[in-house]
Amino acid sequence: MTITPTIQAVGWNGDECVLVDQTKLPGQEVLISCRKVQTLIDAIQALSVRGAPALGVAGAYGTAVAAREVLDTRPKDPWHFFDSLCEKLAEARPTAVNLRWGVERARKKVEALRPDFSLRVFETLLTEAKEIHSEDHKWNEQMAKHGAALFNGGAAMTVCNTGDLCTGGIGTAFGVLREAFFQKRIDHVYALETRPLLQGLRLTAWELARNNIDYTIICDNMAASVMRDKRISGIVVGADRIVANGDFANKIGTYMLAVLAKHHRIPFYVAAPSSTFDPSLSTGKEIPIEERKPEEILSVLGTNRPEAPFRVFNPAFDVTPHELVTGIICEKGTLLSPNAENVSRFLGEKGVLQ
Amino acid sequence: MTITPTIQAVGWNGDECVLVDQTKLPGQEVLISCRKVQTLIDAIQALSVRGAPALGVAGAYGTAVAAREVLDTRPKDPWHFFDSLCEKLAEARPTAVNLRWGVERARKKVEALRPDFSLRVFETLLTEAKEIHSEDHKWNEQMAKHGAALFNGGAAMTVCNTGDLCTGGIGTAFGVLREAFFQKRIDHVYALETRPLLQGLRLTAWELARNNIDYTIICDNMAASVMRDKRISGIVVGADRIVANGDFANKIGTYMLAVLAKHHRIPFYVAAPSSTFDPSLSTGKEIPIEERKPEEILSVLGTNRPEAPFRVFNPAFDVTPHELVTGIICEKGTLLSPNAENVSRFLGEKGVLQ
Repeated sequence: MTITPTIQAVGWNGDECVLVDQTKLPGQEVLISCRKVQTLIDAIQALSVRGAPALGVAGAYGTAVAAREVLDTRPKDPWHFFDSLCEKLAEARPTAVNLRWGVERARKKVEALRPDFSLRVFETLLTEAKEIHSEDHKWNEQMAKHGAALFNGGAAMTVCNTGDLCTGGIGTAFGVLREAFFQKRIDHVYALETRPLLQGLRLTAWELARNNIDYTIICDNMAASVMRDKRISGIVVGADRIVANGDFANKIGTYMLAVLAKHHRIPFYVAAPSSTFDPSLSTGKEIPIEERKPEEILSVLGTNRPEAPFRVFNPAFDVTPHELVTGIICEKGTLLSPNAENVSRFLGEKGVLQ
Repeated sequence: MTITPTIQAVGWNGDECVLVDQTKLPGQEVLISCRKVQTLIDAIQALSVRGAPALGVAGAYGTAVAAREVLDTRPKDPWHFFDSLCEKLAEARPTAVNLRWGVERARKKVEALRPDFSLRVFETLLTEAKEIHSEDHKWNEQMAKHGAALFNGGAAMTVCNTGDLCTGGIGTAFGVLREAFFQKRIDHVYALETRPLLQGLRLTAWELARNNIDYTIICDNMAASVMRDKRISGIVVGADRIVANGDFANKIGTYMLAVLAKHHRIPFYVAAPSSTFDPSLSTGKEIPIEERKPEEILSVLGTNRPEAPFRVFNPAFDVTPHELVTGIICEKGTLLSPNAENVSRFLGEKGVLQ
């Protein structure tokens, strides 16, 4: 079965980076055109584009947007301006390492072109961004095949959104589930709605339906009883950053799933391309966890809300220790029982941030 | 410190049972007057009144509403009509045993008055309902004292709403937390928002704020990382039905908390009055679990929703096995490590459904 993405979350059109505004989905399909780096940063911070691999691709295209902006505005010191735009872009969100990875990988390609800032800078960046994009697409297919092979009957569970909306291809964990369903290695997907922003209910349900995959959406607090009462044979989640010892950050609720999976003796897999590894950090404790505004939790109350200020805590991610991970599904294969030693061997001498 | 409830969820006024419409809270404080049993049943099914002990009290007052309705409408066979109203009321929701308990306990008081259906039937039922109400209030205070003694520093966690809105007094788990906070035995309460109907975010936050208790609301999927990263010294939840071996049903997400508490070696307590015990069932597998309509989950999407039908699963409760329970806090004391043997001893010869 060939795997083709059914929507392109991030792409390039003429002189612009184009995004699907995921905050409007599934109700409306709206595109955002980014001709300025700030527009792209705003879109990233508003989660109009989100998902670790898609942020890597967006970061790479963003360097081309930066170069285009330099060429259009002709600042006095073009490289200085370009560098500051790239730095702002790389810092737009703290947890997913892929964003900086995409920015840095594209930037390296134009180092040799200094000091002139010509059209060639833009063209080189755009070529590299497209290469990163198509590489991510290919990696998705490879992960899907490696991951599907790990299933052999029953239903699977996932959290957040990890499909074509947040990658350059068919997705990370979603790609695995889709391929496993098409190969009849699973017969159902239970997807957590994923509070506060409901990426599961809004986006994953939409992707599952479009792919004709049998699914059920549950509230996050139902995961434990579904693991006990339904035939869940495995859990697959994405990752925003995997560090040297195999600890990883992902959407809040992932650590909960890992603990519940252990209790119910259900295999727990992480699907992420090598662009998600950050071997510069030794344990998960060092990963910066983005805290987002209370409004994301409170908006659900609409007008049914007292005037008193609410006290809420809104971490967007949590860290799962490698001891709870059955395997990391990557484009080059599945690393079982990850730890500092075998992660280092798995990544090889080049490390990852190429 | 005397404990006085700050709002009366269910009460009696003149010839009517009066409820606070909890679906309108915290935005608006609206009362519902029930002069007919069907009005009360509708309110129970819409969750305008909810929470196991409050349902017990509402069930008892409901028998007085039924008697009033019989006296007002003068049906041909008053006792038959009365019995059918009581049966419909007792069946309005399946999981919490307290509703039937309240109905049956009040009904027993008027058995001796058959065959005449006089004003005395109504008066006897109302007297018994008021007795059940004030007993529940007293039980709340006793539970609060027994439960608070189990804490000695740190923060606590709870789910759903278990305060004065869902009991005849200050609450079950909430009463324990409130007393522990006032005694400085805990310094903070983390309350889960409790999807889909957000009883934590809407009701518990409101009760915590009115009692000047330091609190933080979190999404349900944050419970695991908060247990790991904050100083959670205990978890206290309510119960809708506790069976003979100590297994119990409570709001969906409770089983999740129990498993997570075990992993993090955090004591896990259930606070419930003896009206919540149902020794007629031997294990939790026999408890009927109410499944509610998908709309409760989906309404959060508002207009941001595709036309395609969503597939969702919406169990309102889950069952926690007794092995995961550190102790059951009851009006007569705390039963540690509950199991079939010690639950039976704890209940005594009278059993519970008096």
